Amino acid sequence: MDIAPYKRHAYYYETDKMGIVHHSNYVRILEESRVDLMAKLGLPFTKVEGLGLMIPVLSVNVEYKFPLRFDDEFEVRCRVTGFNGCKFSLDYEVNNLTTGKLAVKASTSHCFTDERLVPVRLKKKFPEIYEIFAQLADNRKEDQNEYDKR
Amino acid sequence: MDIAPYKRHAYYYETDKMGIVHHSNYVRILEESRVDLMAKLGLPFTKVEGLGLMIPVLSVNVEYKFPLRFDDEFEVRCRVTGFNGCKFSLDYEVNNLTTGKLAVKASTSHCFTDERLVPVRLKKKFPEIYEIFAQLADNRKEDQNEYDKR
Amino acid sequence: MDIAPYKRHAYYYETDKMGIVHHSNYVRILEESRVDLMAKLGLPFTKVEGLGLMIPVLSVNVEYKFPLRFDDEFEVRCRVTGFNGCKFSLDYEVNNLTTGKLAVKASTSHCFTDERLVPVRLKKKFPEIYEIFAQLADNRKEDQNEYDKR
Amino acid sequence: MDIAPYKRHAYYYETDKMGIVHHSNYVRILEESRVDLMAKLGLPFTKVEGLGLMIPVLSVNVEYKFPLRFDDEFEVRCRVTGFNGCKFSLDYEVNNLTTGKLAVKASTSHCFTDERLVPVRLKKKFPEIYEIFAQLADNRKEDQNEYDKR
Repeated sequence: MDIAPYKRHAYYYETDKMGIVHHSNYVRILEESRVDLMAKLGLPFTKVEGLGLMIPVLSVNVEYKFPLRFDDEFEVRCRVTGFNGCKFSLDYEVNNLTTGKLAVKASTSHCFTDERLVPVRLKKKFPEIYEIFAQLADNRKEDQNEYDKR
Repeated sequence: MDIAPYKRHAYYYETDKMGIVHHSNYVRILEESRVDLMAKLGLPFTKVEGLGLMIPVLSVNVEYKFPLRFDDEFEVRCRVTGFNGCKFSLDYEVNNLTTGKLAVKASTSHCFTDERLVPVRLKKKFPEIYEIFAQLADNRKEDQNEYDKR
Repeated sequence: MDIAPYKRHAYYYETDKMGIVHHSNYVRILEESRVDLMAKLGLPFTKVEGLGLMIPVLSVNVEYKFPLRFDDEFEVRCRVTGFNGCKFSLDYEVNNLTTGKLAVKASTSHCFTDERLVPVRLKKKFPEIYEIFAQLADNRKEDQNEYDKR
Repeated sequence: MDIAPYKRHAYYYETDKMGIVHHSNYVRILEESRVDLMAKLGLPFTKVEGLGLMIPVLSVNVEYKFPLRFDDEFEVRCRVTGFNGCKFSLDYEVNNLTTGKLAVKASTSHCFTDERLVPVRLKKKFPEIYEIFAQLADNRKEDQNEYDKR
């Protein structure tokens, strides 16, 4: 599946006294791209939350390559890399379109929970959501197999 | 009533590329001092929210004097300046203890609401909270009268 | 002059435990719309800063009407309301396009400074920037006169 | 070496619509504790920056265990885990003192750079800073050996 990357410019208030985007803001940018991805998949967060589901973050890993600066345009490419029916993981690349440099590589993991933050297995209760994530994770595997054959 | 001011140092992530604390962060600092004030008055926010009350912000006014910089220590003096049984207003002074300069003068107004953000009149339902705020606003008037007499 | 308003959706991380966009974030949204306005006027912040000019904020006033919630689309209309050759002021309206409600009315004031934050009078040193702001403030007056005649 | 942990309460504006501290804020809390650690080591960031050194972040890893909620008191224990004369790494534990639960485990890596973000080897130019970090990393190894013997 080919999903258009998430794009915007770096805000002034995202910079710090080093003159670069503060490293904490990339964690927020990853979230923006995740929300954007889910909307593009026909599964907007607001709909997911309307079903009584929450998607807390279990882990975040960020490697900083070349800093974004104020007003730099960037795009985030975000892919589902794993799904076990409850937890899922994502990979990200943040590319600085102004300089052409890779800004950040990152990954996050998440789980679906109810409103008291208790994990929920999707297959029975939310088969539609299950199917979307299962397929995304599968596509990913096929992409990798394809890659391995070369 | 003499309440100790709220104090802390400016965080690195609060700075922007001008090398000063970003102006939006003072609005957050005001909130910190408000929360601190209410705890010191024996009325912690968590208790207020436990009663099903929320305290959204109706307005914020900030005048920026001399910017805080990274690691500057500051104190916030926060006073109740008005209360009508539902709405209340506060005045603030943020002083930079590192430089001795006034950083910010500010005021905010608020109202008590239920969880659907519908305004609540405190007098009947929450007489204890009513009394605390009424007295704070009254003290304030007396302070002013005292001041006027001079 | 008719300048397209600034638009985006509210981010998840902008919400607070009341389930609404935290009031401090509007101050950041105003900045985003200011940066956007200046780019649309042919005077991007990066260019202004490249000339050694900074534009610190002198004051911010925000009146909160109806809160934005996660993923609500909003637009910000931002206009220059005054300019004296060094200081300028702006008015803002943040409209929630998802609900059709006015979210926030606001105003800010600013001054042009050098990199040590010393005020700079634009007319001699930066006549081009002077002209743009003078014209914006003038248009504004004409709009008002027009309005007064009705 | 026994250094007192960094402590504070969770701010209201750090919460999100799930009612918990937004995951991005822990990255900021880690920075706060880093700044605090360096001050306690006699090497405040302001002094380091006064020498023309910057300390950008190379990577951040955060594992979220039990969320902090508004006003929860927490402490951060932060330790140097490696140092090669230019890069260093840190480990963190954020403990919720209100609930007694582990909130977050994290690690970050950093390097010393000049003001253009070019890496700097400390040994020759900044032997004092070199010594502090070398000793911290060594203590760490000894602690581990001690641990291994058991």
